[in-house]
Amino acid sequence: MTHPGAPAVPRSTLVITAHAGDFVWRAGGAIALAASRGEKVTIACLTFGERGESAKAWREGRKLEEIKAIRRDEAERAAATLGAEVRFFDAGDYPLLVTPELTDRLVEVYRDTQPDIVLTHPAEDPYNGDHPAANRMALEARVLAQAIGYPGPGEIIGAPPVFYFEPHQPEMSGFRPEVLLDITEVWETKRQAMECLGAQQHLWDYYTDLAVRRGVQLKRNAGPNLGLAHRTMAEAFMRPYPQIAKELA
Amino acid sequence: MTHPGAPAVPRSTLVITAHAGDFVWRAGGAIALAASRGEKVTIACLTFGERGESAKAWREGRKLEEIKAIRRDEAERAAATLGAEVRFFDAGDYPLLVTPELTDRLVEVYRDTQPDIVLTHPAEDPYNGDHPAANRMALEARVLAQAIGYPGPGEIIGAPPVFYFEPHQPEMSGFRPEVLLDITEVWETKRQAMECLGAQQHLWDYYTDLAVRRGVQLKRNAGPNLGLAHRTMAEAFMRPYPQIAKELA
Amino acid sequence: MTHPGAPAVPRSTLVITAHAGDFVWRAGGAIALAASRGEKVTIACLTFGERGESAKAWREGRKLEEIKAIRRDEAERAAATLGAEVRFFDAGDYPLLVTPELTDRLVEVYRDTQPDIVLTHPAEDPYNGDHPAANRMALEARVLAQAIGYPGPGEIIGAPPVFYFEPHQPEMSGFRPEVLLDITEVWETKRQAMECLGAQQHLWDYYTDLAVRRGVQLKRNAGPNLGLAHRTMAEAFMRPYPQIAKELA
Amino acid sequence: MTHPGAPAVPRSTLVITAHAGDFVWRAGGAIALAASRGEKVTIACLTFGERGESAKAWREGRKLEEIKAIRRDEAERAAATLGAEVRFFDAGDYPLLVTPELTDRLVEVYRDTQPDIVLTHPAEDPYNGDHPAANRMALEARVLAQAIGYPGPGEIIGAPPVFYFEPHQPEMSGFRPEVLLDITEVWETKRQAMECLGAQQHLWDYYTDLAVRRGVQLKRNAGPNLGLAHRTMAEAFMRPYPQIAKELA
Amino acid sequence: MTHPGAPAVPRSTLVITAHAGDFVWRAGGAIALAASRGEKVTIACLTFGERGESAKAWREGRKLEEIKAIRRDEAERAAATLGAEVRFFDAGDYPLLVTPELTDRLVEVYRDTQPDIVLTHPAEDPYNGDHPAANRMALEARVLAQAIGYPGPGEIIGAPPVFYFEPHQPEMSGFRPEVLLDITEVWETKRQAMECLGAQQHLWDYYTDLAVRRGVQLKRNAGPNLGLAHRTMAEAFMRPYPQIAKELA
Amino acid sequence: MTHPGAPAVPRSTLVITAHAGDFVWRAGGAIALAASRGEKVTIACLTFGERGESAKAWREGRKLEEIKAIRRDEAERAAATLGAEVRFFDAGDYPLLVTPELTDRLVEVYRDTQPDIVLTHPAEDPYNGDHPAANRMALEARVLAQAIGYPGPGEIIGAPPVFYFEPHQPEMSGFRPEVLLDITEVWETKRQAMECLGAQQHLWDYYTDLAVRRGVQLKRNAGPNLGLAHRTMAEAFMRPYPQIAKELA
Repeated sequence: MTHPGAPAVPRSTLVITAHAGDFVWRAGGAIALAASRGEKVTIACLTFGERGESAKAWREGRKLEEIKAIRRDEAERAAATLGAEVRFFDAGDYPLLVTPELTDRLVEVYRDTQPDIVLTHPAEDPYNGDHPAANRMALEARVLAQAIGYPGPGEIIGAPPVFYFEPHQPEMSGFRPEVLLDITEVWETKRQAMECLGAQQHLWDYYTDLAVRRGVQLKRNAGPNLGLAHRTMAEAFMRPYPQIAKELA
Repeated sequence: MTHPGAPAVPRSTLVITAHAGDFVWRAGGAIALAASRGEKVTIACLTFGERGESAKAWREGRKLEEIKAIRRDEAERAAATLGAEVRFFDAGDYPLLVTPELTDRLVEVYRDTQPDIVLTHPAEDPYNGDHPAANRMALEARVLAQAIGYPGPGEIIGAPPVFYFEPHQPEMSGFRPEVLLDITEVWETKRQAMECLGAQQHLWDYYTDLAVRRGVQLKRNAGPNLGLAHRTMAEAFMRPYPQIAKELA
Repeated sequence: MTHPGAPAVPRSTLVITAHAGDFVWRAGGAIALAASRGEKVTIACLTFGERGESAKAWREGRKLEEIKAIRRDEAERAAATLGAEVRFFDAGDYPLLVTPELTDRLVEVYRDTQPDIVLTHPAEDPYNGDHPAANRMALEARVLAQAIGYPGPGEIIGAPPVFYFEPHQPEMSGFRPEVLLDITEVWETKRQAMECLGAQQHLWDYYTDLAVRRGVQLKRNAGPNLGLAHRTMAEAFMRPYPQIAKELA
Repeated sequence: MTHPGAPAVPRSTLVITAHAGDFVWRAGGAIALAASRGEKVTIACLTFGERGESAKAWREGRKLEEIKAIRRDEAERAAATLGAEVRFFDAGDYPLLVTPELTDRLVEVYRDTQPDIVLTHPAEDPYNGDHPAANRMALEARVLAQAIGYPGPGEIIGAPPVFYFEPHQPEMSGFRPEVLLDITEVWETKRQAMECLGAQQHLWDYYTDLAVRRGVQLKRNAGPNLGLAHRTMAEAFMRPYPQIAKELA
Repeated sequence: MTHPGAPAVPRSTLVITAHAGDFVWRAGGAIALAASRGEKVTIACLTFGERGESAKAWREGRKLEEIKAIRRDEAERAAATLGAEVRFFDAGDYPLLVTPELTDRLVEVYRDTQPDIVLTHPAEDPYNGDHPAANRMALEARVLAQAIGYPGPGEIIGAPPVFYFEPHQPEMSGFRPEVLLDITEVWETKRQAMECLGAQQHLWDYYTDLAVRRGVQLKRNAGPNLGLAHRTMAEAFMRPYPQIAKELA
Repeated sequence: MTHPGAPAVPRSTLVITAHAGDFVWRAGGAIALAASRGEKVTIACLTFGERGESAKAWREGRKLEEIKAIRRDEAERAAATLGAEVRFFDAGDYPLLVTPELTDRLVEVYRDTQPDIVLTHPAEDPYNGDHPAANRMALEARVLAQAIGYPGPGEIIGAPPVFYFEPHQPEMSGFRPEVLLDITEVWETKRQAMECLGAQQHLWDYYTDLAVRRGVQLKRNAGPNLGLAHRTMAEAFMRPYPQIAKELA
């Protein structure tokens, strides 16, 4: 929704993630969909997942900086495939620490990108403390970026809706699918982006199966007259804030 | 959303309520909005609220049938004001009993109206047991109406999204505003419909204030570039089922 | 709290329980306290607990009517010890069924006793379905008794506060101590009432230990300057409705 | 409650808030009530709300120190109107950081004021992270101040009951009204205190409407024989710890 | 666990389900595992799922009795494949009604089979009201069957642990995997049993994928030194009652 | 469970607690049971509880170092009685601060002890902030210790199951007994270990009563044929992660 006479600025999506691969597995469809509509998508990647999500590279005897370079390269290719820009913060993972400095850097990103929507990790994840840490900073920076009194460059932002993408073990992380997004038309793009992540090949099929299952659920929850594809692929999201609507649907 | 080549059947909204006044206070804006777009709105009113919500009439010494007639008349005028059709079930209130027979009558309404969306009471209300009773039957009938094996006239339905409207004491009823609907443009219509309910004049201002407060909350949760009225009026709803989306917004 | 010029009607407490022994174990202290202040306490005992809570008598080969007579006699002596009146409904236990007829009889009791407070079972108990059944009818009848349109003898009631007493397995029944009542001064009376229940002698010490434990918790949560007894005895309660206060304390 | 022979020390209330205006909007009635009974009320105000809650002043081009001075002055006048003393910590808002040093300063305040009750923000607020931060330090300092082994001046405290006052968006912050306080008799004082906060004039009517709504809820939950004013005004609170009672009411 | 000198009665498992196919999709692995150890497994199948879960047959124009016969036949073959006995109650589905009579029949089954463990549906399922109905009767009958005062043939039972099997949409039904059962060694048997259910062929792969996913989760939650198969297959369960243990593991 | 041909390394239990006495009151039975089976038990004791749990010593005028020495001595004797090794971290209590350094030291302990199971405090405790702080570091270190990329000496660990032991006020800390451990056979050992803690003599009987009560609850939840002692003693635990099982029981 835009002011009647507003200039045609493309919609902006901001994705804030803990590790280099998260945006692909969990939100690659949403990103590709937005990009396919000509929208701008920016991924703020707080760490490379160099310690916590690169077991294969460590077992192969690689060094820290080498691993970070590999992960950066993979992530950049995946982002390009999806049609998004990725910015790396190199804040150090396992553990990713919540600090005012890193939060402040995120405030700058908010003000710079002026997002219409924000995607990030859910608030809980008993299997990976970096995900809740990213969530806390993403939410706090969003509030700070709204305040005219908070110093820093750029214009203040509005209150863009936030979506939590699906964690690896949803039931253990308090995750309930509140929005099921139909990503059928960009599915091939998401699959290609996943295949950029060579170090985690075992997850390609895993997340393909998940998209099928969420697609089945989407159809089970769809109202009448919904022209759905035979094999609908979907991603699930939560909304921590109320939806603003002009119509119930 | 419709099949590409589907004939232009207007969207259908089904509202299932316990008492004659509920649809006005709690969903009058949503109803008026749908009607203003040329959509069909059907209100299934399970009772007249003759025992539990007509204290003034009882104090004036009126009889049961007389009270039901007054409530029916008020509700019909309010529905007409909003642009909706109301059907009375006269199932008896205080208590409204959950029965297979009444549920079966609701299945018929579902199949007859083929709703695109459904509005009803939330599942909890510690101040009025009729509301949860209406909720249970509304939800159960919706599932039964989807089954080809469930007998009765009419075509089976899809899985229309359900919205719970706001109860009188939201925090005590587990109500969290998950959707804030902008009803500013139909506010005058809702106010007129409320004024059809002469027996509950003390609620006119109460629900006007509520709409203001939900409007403030809507603006607090709105993203950027949302061309909102200075005095936005809103109604709040919950979603018991996931939202199906083609786009995150 | 009373109207300034109201006549000195003693306060009235209504206790609604599923089985004959419940009021002693779970609320004997609260009852004795109220009675010790000259207040009226009425216990509505829906069943004798003849099937579900009389294992010893069944093992001794007694018959149903005989068991009911024993339980009635025990409960009457315990109620007299506490200073309360007990009314038996003989509705049949295991299972206690939720019916409109039994609920209606409770409406009459509400209107007859005009309670200032109500005590009953919590809403959940995975070990005994009769307790939630009593809870549902107690709450529903309280709402119906407030409605001038609900037929029956007696005056309508206000909205007396409700307290849930402690179930046998509190953590498994969603029970959180929200009110800790100091029953030290009537402890001996409660112990004597427990000893009227000869068939359940193993519970005498169990509930004495519980009172000690709740007393320790009371002291742990007490503000400064509270002149508490060395060995404080307490009972725990939940409040399903908000407390109305003239002062925070 | 006091020891039978205790000297007549007036009761003490401690209010711990994040920003300069919070105590007025959220607890002004409770403060005025306590003061009207001759009790001592101390407000520990952690920040002036200079960055996060002073948008109007920033838009007018004022400087940080100037804004702090304005907020301090407003808050002092509002506190004086209510009959309370306010102490400023100037800890910096947006974000208010949780630190051991600030917590330690609160321990000193607890030991100095020896509160009989404590008022503070709820544990959750997805719209303002400073409020949960204040909550965490207020609760932690209260526990530390009870320990004889925790160093610092003053006497250790007991375990004063804690009340959470109402946040701006209660349903989104897990807020359930557990205590409804009748503030009718001090309403005019609260309104005058609100009018000291010139920068937030749009909230005067908003919080007046809220008091009306909580008053309606109070009456809906009140037992019989409660001599309530026609237009009852109320404030809502939560209790994170059990209530200690000598009587159920 | 058995009394030291107890005779070697094989362990008994009781499965209570709403519809004819439920035990295969949701608990086929657990059943096959128990049977493979020589234990007795009894399935109490309350309905054939003739109305709610036989859409294909209805679309083919079959009649009610014919559909019931088909479903019975399929279920019997699946049960035989798993090594279990199935008993049909033919209570009528969509809706399955909660009645004292049907509950009483379940009490008889409990006393007849003397189960060491019980498997049934979870308490919530917003997509199918028959599942919660089966849950309620299964739990209530289990409690009644323990009471010596409840009439009927057979010996009273102990308090066998209960396991809820996984619903179709776990996150929407409050389902959290609390027990992950390794069913790798009986996987082929479960697959064969699924293939007995010809009317629901689309679910064969769906539930195979689910078993893979639960197997991945099992490995993610497994302690060290657990000799797991490369492709571990698993089923998930909840425990409504505490686990009784002789050792933490 | 071990690999078929694995060498007979005794099972290892790691207990992480905030204060010197916690492991005795809350998990003494579990520790003694494991030790009695020849298993290795290591207690990581983060502080001596010198400030927050030594009120008696402070009142006697003792100094900080003296108090720490007393607590250390008591804890060592209690650990020896139970058959466990205790390691002190002396991190400072009231408040115990969550830091990356202390978490890192715990990672070393995990890798050194290679635990098969882990015991620690629950995530919530409104009466003592040190307990949640210990919980957070215990859980985070467990995840970090699994990552090959996390630096430090020792081998990475698997994903050992975690058990939360019972807090002092279970209902106020979100504690639900999910596992009831039969400690009858080591009860005398636990009692002796408690009696090593001379400064808290008032808790000896308190925790004896608790073990009786949890034992009653264990029997109430036990299936048939469980050869339980007349006076069963038990400890309660929660599981934050799913149980991995080869059999449902």
